[in-house]
Amino acid sequence: MRLSRYFLPVLKETPAEAQIVSHRLMLRAGMIRQASAGIYSWLPLGYRVLTRIARIVNEEQVRAGHIPMLMPTLQSADLWRESGRYDDYGEEMLRIRDRHDRDMLYGPTNEELITDIFRSYVGSYRQLPLTLYHIQWKFRDEIRPRFGVMRGREFLMKDGYNFDLTREDALHAYNRHLVSYLRTYERMGLQAIPMRADSGPIGGEDTHEFLVLAETGESEVFYDAEITDLKFGDRAIDYDDRAQCQAVLEEFTSRYARTDETHDEAVFAQVPEERRRKARGIEVGQIFYFGTKYSEPMGATVQGPDGKPVPVHMGSHGIGVSRLMGAIIEASHDERGIIWPEGVTPFHVGIVNLKQGDGEADAACERLYGELSALGLEPLYDDRDERAGAKFATMDLIGLPWRITVGPRGLKAGVVEVTDRRTGASEEMTPEAAVARIDEIYHPHRSAPVPAAVEPMAKRTFHTWI
Amino acid sequence: MRLSRYFLPVLKETPAEAQIVSHRLMLRAGMIRQASAGIYSWLPLGYRVLTRIARIVNEEQVRAGHIPMLMPTLQSADLWRESGRYDDYGEEMLRIRDRHDRDMLYGPTNEELITDIFRSYVGSYRQLPLTLYHIQWKFRDEIRPRFGVMRGREFLMKDGYNFDLTREDALHAYNRHLVSYLRTYERMGLQAIPMRADSGPIGGEDTHEFLVLAETGESEVFYDAEITDLKFGDRAIDYDDRAQCQAVLEEFTSRYARTDETHDEAVFAQVPEERRRKARGIEVGQIFYFGTKYSEPMGATVQGPDGKPVPVHMGSHGIGVSRLMGAIIEASHDERGIIWPEGVTPFHVGIVNLKQGDGEADAACERLYGELSALGLEPLYDDRDERAGAKFATMDLIGLPWRITVGPRGLKAGVVEVTDRRTGASEEMTPEAAVARIDEIYHPHRSAPVPAAVEPMAKRTFHTWI
Repeated sequence: MRLSRYFLPVLKETPAEAQIVSHRLMLRAGMIRQASAGIYSWLPLGYRVLTRIARIVNEEQVRAGHIPMLMPTLQSADLWRESGRYDDYGEEMLRIRDRHDRDMLYGPTNEELITDIFRSYVGSYRQLPLTLYHIQWKFRDEIRPRFGVMRGREFLMKDGYNFDLTREDALHAYNRHLVSYLRTYERMGLQAIPMRADSGPIGGEDTHEFLVLAETGESEVFYDAEITDLKFGDRAIDYDDRAQCQAVLEEFTSRYARTDETHDEAVFAQVPEERRRKARGIEVGQIFYFGTKYSEPMGATVQGPDGKPVPVHMGSHGIGVSRLMGAIIEASHDERGIIWPEGVTPFHVGIVNLKQGDGEADAACERLYGELSALGLEPLYDDRDERAGAKFATMDLIGLPWRITVGPRGLKAGVVEVTDRRTGASEEMTPEAAVARIDEIYHPHRSAPVPAAVEPMAKRTFHTWI
Repeated sequence: MRLSRYFLPVLKETPAEAQIVSHRLMLRAGMIRQASAGIYSWLPLGYRVLTRIARIVNEEQVRAGHIPMLMPTLQSADLWRESGRYDDYGEEMLRIRDRHDRDMLYGPTNEELITDIFRSYVGSYRQLPLTLYHIQWKFRDEIRPRFGVMRGREFLMKDGYNFDLTREDALHAYNRHLVSYLRTYERMGLQAIPMRADSGPIGGEDTHEFLVLAETGESEVFYDAEITDLKFGDRAIDYDDRAQCQAVLEEFTSRYARTDETHDEAVFAQVPEERRRKARGIEVGQIFYFGTKYSEPMGATVQGPDGKPVPVHMGSHGIGVSRLMGAIIEASHDERGIIWPEGVTPFHVGIVNLKQGDGEADAACERLYGELSALGLEPLYDDRDERAGAKFATMDLIGLPWRITVGPRGLKAGVVEVTDRRTGASEEMTPEAAVARIDEIYHPHRSAPVPAAVEPMAKRTFHTWI
């Protein structure tokens, strides 16, 4: 993308309404614009990051064997009356009446709707296990929306639902989600720590929240410092292997890590003092096992192996897709702007032409642009007729992790400069070497499509018709 | 995907509520499920097609130089009061009151919101031209939703908005949209004819609707038979070249083609009688030029070359993404089920194992599955323990355009069977030849990513800060 042809309305001044750094930077970098309280338009740069986050979430869900679909934003109140949550949910649920005076609502979550779909089509244990998920806009009518997309009203979320015959099967689904979430966050350059949490209005007996440590986090968290040394990394995992998934759960949850809701001073005191940490965290996901809480009242049963109907064991598992953008920025910025992790950066590399209009500099930039593009990378070429300081400031603010600077003086010596946004370190090299360097950096971050041969879950005997 | 591990709840019986063939087939093929009146959940197979349609729309918009972003589903009523449409819009607008008693609405379209974004950031003619678009869920509270996703209440639409300094510039944007729409529909296997139309509640002086001919279409259309011979095909187009775009507009709109709203018997009578056609059509898109209708009341002005403020010339351009699925099925099915065009098929090829459990047949199917997947194709392998008739019926119903049938008898002779869903013609060949044949078929339909070097529109001098 050439900046002269893009729509990147960066702001010099920080809008007064922004209280936290991610909100300030997203506004200044021209990523979002508030449409009304707690509701945002995603400007082109913000939308790019949103799609990159969603793509990683999608790929890791499919890799874990979960099946994508899409439920609508608006729901009928009837299903929520069946589960008993219509009256319980309170004012955060946006209630709507249509032209025929039917009660509807903007879905804050989808347990009822997915359970209704399940019970309509699935009748036998042989059709299990099944995990369906979607990435869709939700609405929670927060009384005081704030912190930009971190606590907005209309927000994008991945929510998935597992349906299993037994508690053990459902706990395997729970573990599978935990593993896939660890992979998901790491691909975004985040460390998100699973912490034992309170189940809140979803209800359930087992639940973990995933928290990113950040000073501006809304939750107080308590943890054993050893937990931050854990990395999922690039290890191979067979999502159908129960023991493997269980081992990952144990590895990542056996040390003390709790939010204030479940914090227990007596248990925490058993952690050696030098490893006890108190900090703040941003919740970026949560997994729940809630057994038959919805399947019983809503009649979501299957015929078991003995021919008798059994209510299915369920869980729901969410990732805050739009909120993640704020969390990533909270965890990765400096005084000059955002520093995108390679996995989610809106453009892979910036090209700064120090002397727009200079024949050689222009030609060198065009070559770099063409060669990087041909490798499947997406450069952002600042081809504006601006002075160098303005170009650097823009690049630093919008936070591309790598920059190639091209100027007449360097070109005389046959070199351009490659700069690491995070460390500020620069290195001179030939344009060819610069292209190779950027390509190499992104090699592990290339969005590897999940092989089509990856299959959802253990083989099920799923009968259709005839 | 192995069918035994997928979620494909096909129905034997046709639900009583479905009046038209696309609705019947989408329900029977397990693509959608009604959540409430005119609101649908997209089951995995339906969601797959929806994403394929959206991807084609996206690629062709980016190719034309338009910039993707995303506006929210809910809007504040204030902007609609500014344009004067809040009171005009009538009962199709879903009006909502939040917990603070603020008037909101579920966006049926986005002229106001995008104009607000534009006026907030753009101040000079040098920042033009600009076309922004998004693909987002909309809501129209139809009094009698029907025909499944063809006339639903919550629907997915691409809407794009151009901002230009002059009427001539805006008409070029109009032509650019027309060209990109022709390409878009053809990639989906559809012939959509641009017809002069009425502007309706959007308002405007120039507008064309794109109609797909189908018996079940809601509009009556009148056209010169010559128009159905026109193909855009694979011709190269430079979207910045005004003369080229104008020539395409003239080629595709110079023959008589109108909906009943603008039909003129006297003009129609000038078409030679043997070429006069009266038919029904489904509207799948519409382009509008409406000048300063929104920019004037909302103060969306830029400083012109002479330093004086001028209201920008705008247009809005829509493609009915979810509705297209119905239109494609209306245009492409037979008595056994759907026949997907290659461009949007949910899976590229079906593999039918005639004797599940037979060692040789199973191994041959696995090999085919692996080899097709390795080529980037997505096969659907019916590995259920079902008889051949049931497997064929499922494949025919869900409409994959190609099928490979594998059985012990054929394997003894070293062959499998490749079947064309549309013609029913079958041909025996070696498994290797079958893989090569399918690969070749999809060569022109591979979703070619738009080269990153494709740039939005003519170079603009777009200043940011400092």
